[in-house]
Amino acid sequence: MIAENHKNDLLAILGSDNVLWEDADRVSYESGARFDRGKAALILRPRDTEAVSAVVSYCVKHDIAIVAQSGNTGVVSGSTPDGSGEQVVISLDRLTRQFALDRENRSLRVDAGFLLSDVNGKLAEHGLQFPIDLSADPRLGGMLSTNTGGSRFLKFGDVRRNVLGIKVVLADENGTVLDLMSGLRKNNTGVDWKHLFIGTVGAFGIITECELNLEPLPLQVATALLVPRDGAAVMPLLAAMERRLGSYLSAFEGMSGNSMKAALAHVPSLRNPFSNGDVAPYAILTEVSRDWATRDGEQSLDDVLESVLAEIWESANAPLADAFVGPPHDLWALRHALSEGVKSSGRLVACDLSFRRGDVIRFCDHMKEVLPQKYPGITVCDFGHVCDGGVHFNLVLPADQPFDAEAEKTLRAYVYRTAVEEFGGSYSAEHGIGRKNQAFYDRYTDAHRRALAHGLKQLTSPAKIGTVRF
Amino acid sequence: MIAENHKNDLLAILGSDNVLWEDADRVSYESGARFDRGKAALILRPRDTEAVSAVVSYCVKHDIAIVAQSGNTGVVSGSTPDGSGEQVVISLDRLTRQFALDRENRSLRVDAGFLLSDVNGKLAEHGLQFPIDLSADPRLGGMLSTNTGGSRFLKFGDVRRNVLGIKVVLADENGTVLDLMSGLRKNNTGVDWKHLFIGTVGAFGIITECELNLEPLPLQVATALLVPRDGAAVMPLLAAMERRLGSYLSAFEGMSGNSMKAALAHVPSLRNPFSNGDVAPYAILTEVSRDWATRDGEQSLDDVLESVLAEIWESANAPLADAFVGPPHDLWALRHALSEGVKSSGRLVACDLSFRRGDVIRFCDHMKEVLPQKYPGITVCDFGHVCDGGVHFNLVLPADQPFDAEAEKTLRAYVYRTAVEEFGGSYSAEHGIGRKNQAFYDRYTDAHRRALAHGLKQLTSPAKIGTVRF
Repeated sequence: MIAENHKNDLLAILGSDNVLWEDADRVSYESGARFDRGKAALILRPRDTEAVSAVVSYCVKHDIAIVAQSGNTGVVSGSTPDGSGEQVVISLDRLTRQFALDRENRSLRVDAGFLLSDVNGKLAEHGLQFPIDLSADPRLGGMLSTNTGGSRFLKFGDVRRNVLGIKVVLADENGTVLDLMSGLRKNNTGVDWKHLFIGTVGAFGIITECELNLEPLPLQVATALLVPRDGAAVMPLLAAMERRLGSYLSAFEGMSGNSMKAALAHVPSLRNPFSNGDVAPYAILTEVSRDWATRDGEQSLDDVLESVLAEIWESANAPLADAFVGPPHDLWALRHALSEGVKSSGRLVACDLSFRRGDVIRFCDHMKEVLPQKYPGITVCDFGHVCDGGVHFNLVLPADQPFDAEAEKTLRAYVYRTAVEEFGGSYSAEHGIGRKNQAFYDRYTDAHRRALAHGLKQLTSPAKIGTVRF
Repeated sequence: MIAENHKNDLLAILGSDNVLWEDADRVSYESGARFDRGKAALILRPRDTEAVSAVVSYCVKHDIAIVAQSGNTGVVSGSTPDGSGEQVVISLDRLTRQFALDRENRSLRVDAGFLLSDVNGKLAEHGLQFPIDLSADPRLGGMLSTNTGGSRFLKFGDVRRNVLGIKVVLADENGTVLDLMSGLRKNNTGVDWKHLFIGTVGAFGIITECELNLEPLPLQVATALLVPRDGAAVMPLLAAMERRLGSYLSAFEGMSGNSMKAALAHVPSLRNPFSNGDVAPYAILTEVSRDWATRDGEQSLDDVLESVLAEIWESANAPLADAFVGPPHDLWALRHALSEGVKSSGRLVACDLSFRRGDVIRFCDHMKEVLPQKYPGITVCDFGHVCDGGVHFNLVLPADQPFDAEAEKTLRAYVYRTAVEEFGGSYSAEHGIGRKNQAFYDRYTDAHRRALAHGLKQLTSPAKIGTVRF
């Protein structure tokens, strides 16, 4: 709970329209997208960077803990308050004034509260996009502070690669505003500070504005569903596609049979893309895209994809067992429904892992052998971005089996330990860190790096901010 | 000068083969690529990370100042010792053991002492490249610590974008080795520390190993020389090319008439590409590339480029005055000779600037009007990467005119002030910082960022290392 005088002071700073305190108004800011449930002292909704700075300064001076919250679509408790009722939530949801397109610079100066869907909706009119493709619809500030990746990483990279500048409010007594908004693509004049704030979930400051690199919206897209001969054929298949399609290739997403079956069972609008109705044990959604329309004398993109697949099909020791060139909408609908489908099919333990590219399938195969012995009835529903080493490694336990929070913790710890210690991977590829995986940060970050991060925290935002202890 | 006991201790640590102290042996490590001339106490040439750590630890414990030196091709005095004779140079030139290609991960784990040309020579056998194109031939460590950009930034980005991991030796009493070599493309588990060492010229530690992202080597390349209608037509021309060629486009390099004339005059092997022999006042070398060979039914890349240029040529208000599709080798030879040509044509004041893309031409036009009034006889020989906002803004003064170091300082300060304060640009796009532009770092970095950098220096490498005072 917050003292009445602090509440009144914050109301005076922001105006009563921009502060929420009633139970019913707070609830959506206190609940995470999947499982979280905390309690906030107050919800502050500043409308610009100066207002963020003013309330941060006030909170720091009065030792009030702050949690910054963006679209609240994260899954690691990175942006929800804890259960103490003492943390103030600073929501970015009203930071939606500035939207300044610079066509010559191919960039967008924008407030951090915009939804990704709004940004790309507006940009589409200009034939441009912020090229991050996600199943969720977060706000920009959260995307920057978790450095989201998504399904087109192969071609466009992650958020970090597409940020030209940020404005960030530090959690110090002044609510210092660090203006790193040059909008330059090349600038090597000392520390490039923005990289410290991207991916560190608001622990070093609150990103309130940003300048984004934009890419042309593709004018042609072709997709296919590929069935690799077996697990060992996945990387050769990717290599064969990269060699023949280079920068045309914009997605190469692995989908396990279990995850496709779960999606088809739980999302009735989906079409089963397999001609005989039998879902393959593993398939890959691949996409090629071009920024221009087919010209006279040029093959259509569907034809390019068909002929490349035919070439691979006919090659010696072909890595392909089957392939269907299919309509992008249907195939992406299936891909984007996997998460929902898996969630609906039982008790879910979701792990967001990454590896060197060659290790994704090796890890999954290993775990599919080992896990059922330890956990009878477990289903592995993996899917994700084999082309960049990422995999959403989802484990579904039968709903009727005894499985409590402690058991989940043990299972998760086992999966992470195998991923990190045996396969040299990461326990958080693109979800970032939050309260949910603090223990793994503490365990898998060596002492020197933890000490550096702690020192950096003291330098930038020494006050109580965020959900992670650096 | 270094005390005899320190010299002997360092010889004992590295072996006498790996230490140089005679005047004649030291000289190439004391002289910069263009103008520098310092004096080193000793040249240390460790062969692996452990040896770097050992000598760094020794130097720190005995308060001996260190300058790390890579290929020594930089132009801002970032890697040469000062004139005191008290700094020890740690050269990376013998860190050339590890060269481990991971084809599945499309990455290379490599020691930081390799020359760029060696790396790309070896990778070409595998159809791969480290996609940074420069006129110089630096070693990897220097490329990382200055974050070089180059001529294909448009397609592949800078060094930063293509580094998956580093190993770095901190200048503390232990010579702490920070191992950030996961080789993962997606990994969001706290601070991504490598970004603080990339582009900060060794002030926070010495990068000794790295893991690099590799890209397929293009199998087809087509180039053209474009003459824009006028300065105002350059950005519309770029937009027209980007809209029609998207990710095919791999270079769009502006070349002023003055710089082309200087290159043609001083490099006799060059061919004048203009059909009538008249060098245009401004031209653009554009390149498109594809990662595969032309397939049946597919247009050749030359034909694609021809038809796109015809389309632009015929468009309303066409931004093109002339265009020649020409052989890549000849056009790139001209492009890569500009720097040499300009250097040979008089007294050179070279500035490496960047802007928002739309401001490059505006800045150059403005300066071409203003400078000759202040400096009669001055020639502006600008060239560079309009597509990413970078420009090598070279000023040539007549050799017979009085112009001393003080006058150069005044001119440079004027150019930088105009670039930074009036046009919101950067005074170092891709050359990094060193002794040469320390004063501008101090002037144009706000107090808060300077304090943060100073704090970071204390956290990481508190000892005397590097040529920049953070």
